[in-house]
Amino acid sequence: MVAKLHGMCAILATPFDSQKKIDEKSLRSLIDFELKAGVHGVTILGLLGEVLRLSDVERSEITRIVLDEVRGRVPVVSGTGASGTDLAIMYSKEAEKLGVDAVMIAPPRLAKQNDDALVNYYNEIAKEINIPIVVQDEPMTYAVHMSPKLIARFSEIGGVDYIKLEDPPTPIKISQIRSLTDDRLGIFGGLGGLYAFEELSRGAVGVMTGFAYPEVLASVCEAFSRGKREVARDLFYRALPLIRYEAQPMVSLAIRKEIFRRRGSIKDSIMREPATKLDQESFKEIDELLAGINIDELLATSKKVATGKTTA
Amino acid sequence: MVAKLHGMCAILATPFDSQKKIDEKSLRSLIDFELKAGVHGVTILGLLGEVLRLSDVERSEITRIVLDEVRGRVPVVSGTGASGTDLAIMYSKEAEKLGVDAVMIAPPRLAKQNDDALVNYYNEIAKEINIPIVVQDEPMTYAVHMSPKLIARFSEIGGVDYIKLEDPPTPIKISQIRSLTDDRLGIFGGLGGLYAFEELSRGAVGVMTGFAYPEVLASVCEAFSRGKREVARDLFYRALPLIRYEAQPMVSLAIRKEIFRRRGSIKDSIMREPATKLDQESFKEIDELLAGINIDELLATSKKVATGKTTA
Amino acid sequence: MVAKLHGMCAILATPFDSQKKIDEKSLRSLIDFELKAGVHGVTILGLLGEVLRLSDVERSEITRIVLDEVRGRVPVVSGTGASGTDLAIMYSKEAEKLGVDAVMIAPPRLAKQNDDALVNYYNEIAKEINIPIVVQDEPMTYAVHMSPKLIARFSEIGGVDYIKLEDPPTPIKISQIRSLTDDRLGIFGGLGGLYAFEELSRGAVGVMTGFAYPEVLASVCEAFSRGKREVARDLFYRALPLIRYEAQPMVSLAIRKEIFRRRGSIKDSIMREPATKLDQESFKEIDELLAGINIDELLATSKKVATGKTTA
Amino acid sequence: MVAKLHGMCAILATPFDSQKKIDEKSLRSLIDFELKAGVHGVTILGLLGEVLRLSDVERSEITRIVLDEVRGRVPVVSGTGASGTDLAIMYSKEAEKLGVDAVMIAPPRLAKQNDDALVNYYNEIAKEINIPIVVQDEPMTYAVHMSPKLIARFSEIGGVDYIKLEDPPTPIKISQIRSLTDDRLGIFGGLGGLYAFEELSRGAVGVMTGFAYPEVLASVCEAFSRGKREVARDLFYRALPLIRYEAQPMVSLAIRKEIFRRRGSIKDSIMREPATKLDQESFKEIDELLAGINIDELLATSKKVATGKTTA
Repeated sequence: MVAKLHGMCAILATPFDSQKKIDEKSLRSLIDFELKAGVHGVTILGLLGEVLRLSDVERSEITRIVLDEVRGRVPVVSGTGASGTDLAIMYSKEAEKLGVDAVMIAPPRLAKQNDDALVNYYNEIAKEINIPIVVQDEPMTYAVHMSPKLIARFSEIGGVDYIKLEDPPTPIKISQIRSLTDDRLGIFGGLGGLYAFEELSRGAVGVMTGFAYPEVLASVCEAFSRGKREVARDLFYRALPLIRYEAQPMVSLAIRKEIFRRRGSIKDSIMREPATKLDQESFKEIDELLAGINIDELLATSKKVATGKTTA
Repeated sequence: MVAKLHGMCAILATPFDSQKKIDEKSLRSLIDFELKAGVHGVTILGLLGEVLRLSDVERSEITRIVLDEVRGRVPVVSGTGASGTDLAIMYSKEAEKLGVDAVMIAPPRLAKQNDDALVNYYNEIAKEINIPIVVQDEPMTYAVHMSPKLIARFSEIGGVDYIKLEDPPTPIKISQIRSLTDDRLGIFGGLGGLYAFEELSRGAVGVMTGFAYPEVLASVCEAFSRGKREVARDLFYRALPLIRYEAQPMVSLAIRKEIFRRRGSIKDSIMREPATKLDQESFKEIDELLAGINIDELLATSKKVATGKTTA
Repeated sequence: MVAKLHGMCAILATPFDSQKKIDEKSLRSLIDFELKAGVHGVTILGLLGEVLRLSDVERSEITRIVLDEVRGRVPVVSGTGASGTDLAIMYSKEAEKLGVDAVMIAPPRLAKQNDDALVNYYNEIAKEINIPIVVQDEPMTYAVHMSPKLIARFSEIGGVDYIKLEDPPTPIKISQIRSLTDDRLGIFGGLGGLYAFEELSRGAVGVMTGFAYPEVLASVCEAFSRGKREVARDLFYRALPLIRYEAQPMVSLAIRKEIFRRRGSIKDSIMREPATKLDQESFKEIDELLAGINIDELLATSKKVATGKTTA
Repeated sequence: MVAKLHGMCAILATPFDSQKKIDEKSLRSLIDFELKAGVHGVTILGLLGEVLRLSDVERSEITRIVLDEVRGRVPVVSGTGASGTDLAIMYSKEAEKLGVDAVMIAPPRLAKQNDDALVNYYNEIAKEINIPIVVQDEPMTYAVHMSPKLIARFSEIGGVDYIKLEDPPTPIKISQIRSLTDDRLGIFGGLGGLYAFEELSRGAVGVMTGFAYPEVLASVCEAFSRGKREVARDLFYRALPLIRYEAQPMVSLAIRKEIFRRRGSIKDSIMREPATKLDQESFKEIDELLAGINIDELLATSKKVATGKTTA
């Protein structure tokens, strides 16, 4: 894998069957679906992939299946952060051995903020592997704050090539990081894509999110890379009611699994417990929302944009 | 004030002058602006009003000015929660004496979650005043979680008539609360209006937010109350890029003060420290955003909707 | 294993070698040391055992070694909580299969407090195993609050037989739990033993802690069980300077590993990163502390108390 | 007031009457009591003084009463931190005007850790007053982390002369701060005095706590300043069962008010709500504890130490 990470990197949910075991068939069809949707990369074993609810054996199993199904068509990024440096190294080395193209590494849980400990953590991991590291800046879950200055320190570690931001306001943070890092880092936007247009405008190389209509964000990224900002913005604004809806804290995963199920890319929307579920009203909301944004037309436009067959 | 709280209740920012003193003139013009925009109520001394950075004397000063300027045209809700019951009672009684129509009461800070202590807090306050209480469900700032069951307990306290939700996912929470409270509570959506359409669809009586184009949300509420859901949805979707942009954590206040300044309703966008400020790029983002959503046309449509002169 | 859990249950640290691999020899000698010290049970895979920094394979390895070394002489409790119900069940079933006597189960991480989700979590796990569950009430690490009412709900689940408290003030909480649960739960004190005397006085069945002079707390428990409260109190007070010193947040593990190393029960005091280490001054503090409390005399007295050869 | 802050600085509780109003008479007698106990300073409007539950008028009232009663016999430190810089400046200037000797300033609440914002906050306040600032390092309540490096930055601000630590492990932190600040800062230990001996050994200039037997800690400090470490240690160890008991999170204030009430220094142990109260068992625990440590003898020894009439 030589190509750099960029564009729409789809964070994959982990499909489960009714016994809450990994549903390999659905996982393969989900990958197939994402690749057809035009995503530029896939990220596995992230929070949306319920990584914190998987055993080590299951982590490996998912990695193997995904790599086997993707067959090098797009880069595969695997989440390998852990509460301790040694465990993160173990996960990272195994992921490298299995063949992933990059690792996304969440910070360790710290009893209190400790910038030096964080630098040391990323440094120790970087020394042990030969694939790029994507730093996961996710303060809500990991309770670790990464200031632009700290991120600049990370960027000086060989192998730390990317950062994925979930710390709002992401647009301003992108500019701050860029001003301190001389563009050593490829920056990915997050937050469910809610600020994708501003993030890309500020210099993000792409977005990483599990948005269930990946075609749209892939096309937004494509349009951006071809300099067609207004086309990108138009697509983005049209998709916003849905992007926003999916971005709801607590139920984001439930909404996405439900939509992927409806789209036929996974068999069941089941999640591992404890999980916040949708109510009946939510299903109707999704119906109305998709009708309200005229999803079929939006997908058709996305396709045209992706294939360069649009004028704007 | 007999009328019930409903519709778009604008949470007011507190305008400051270059010395960071309260800018009375701007405060009056801001109120004037909000009323012309058609809001159904105003809420003062909320987080957006920088209440935690005001002295007690300043709290009273703001209350007096606002009541004097509003002159009963819409209900005035005043934030009177505190870290202690006695202080919250003191604030609430003073607010009632000054003439506000309702008080919005944040929970006390608790060293740990304690449902009984919360019930006691609201109960003690309710006994001391004769105006309605709006419970402020804002876990991000106050680190207090209000489960639907707990809210149902609040609803049994005489005087606790409303709740304002900032705990996502608000749409589902609205349904849960309604199923437990027999509609004893008027529920206001929050989260910057990001889920206003779903909140109103689920039975919210209105939204409370400091959105800087209050005309739009006021019209959304109006359309809803007249049964014109599709008109409401269309307006809402069109405004979403801006609603979303303003809703950014950390910089929400800065964005809104900047927009209110541009709209001429306050003189200066200055905030009290420590405050997260916008960068140059943000100003350009706002320009592009307002152009991108065609704000003038959106305001014109909102006006038509508000006056019932629309067809849909 | 028929006997109930009670008394001093030593939470085991996990000894590592200089490569940060599990040091089996030290683990075995540590167990030997604890049993000679008179502990009434051992708890493995707790926070002090650095469980969050162990792979699944390492968890199993530790469990096997410990069970093999203990050979049923005292009950072995194994930490098997997880961020998800399915993973916790998997860990718990494996622990049961390997032969542990009970499982200690931390709550899952929840995006927000949710009592019903917690009850469901413990209930689902309890259904899958046939050994007792010790609920781990540790709000500092897991950010989950367990009110006495919630704990009473847990106590109604068949198989949930114990709770270990780390939520101060533990003495008052013990009385509150007992008043609600009709003594269905065996309660263990925690907090490093800092309130062991009060906890036992309030009805705790024992203490669970990794205190590095387990002889003392074992004797305190023995004295208590024989009705010799004053003997217990005297021992406890004499040990308090050390109990307090070891209980220091952030460095508790480092202090204990250092003391166990000095006592010859483990070879190396190395911890997995990120870890807060002691400074040179700390080593001197430990020297002065042990001299100051006259540790040899204290151990001799503890031995006499344990064997019933004391008068008081 | 020229003298530097040092020794046992008693953090004062705020006595309330049965109407939960400030009980001036008790406040005066409490001060009298503390001064007779030999404290080297008093700190008002801290967390133990329930400052977050006081109105601005009450803050001033307490400051006036205390200054009037102390009459310059020992330095008076007043808590003047706030959620905003302007409000903290306002409180600080008023305190200076009323005549306090120093201000203790808690950090502002920040939506996320921001070292530059903290430096700016202390810097802005320092510019506006001419009395020393004691930085309050209290991460539990204020959720702000002050690394030794950040504290070193504070120490370069003219007027920031002291820091009070509540961030464990305080002994190690003291050494870290000293190594970075060239002893520009006078460091006070906190944590209820639980590590006072180690803190003083590491170079703290004193301890700030509301311990209800201030005689003991004042004598510990006295012994230290005269180079009698062993005398200090002996006193400290003997008092530890009580120091530890009072230090219990959640009920620390309740225990201290109860003990001050028993000692006759305040009339009522009432606290403002929401407050965690003691149960009946707690009262018995206190009785047993005071008997167990032989409090009268301990006080007599403390007195001898304070007056230099001891040999050791």
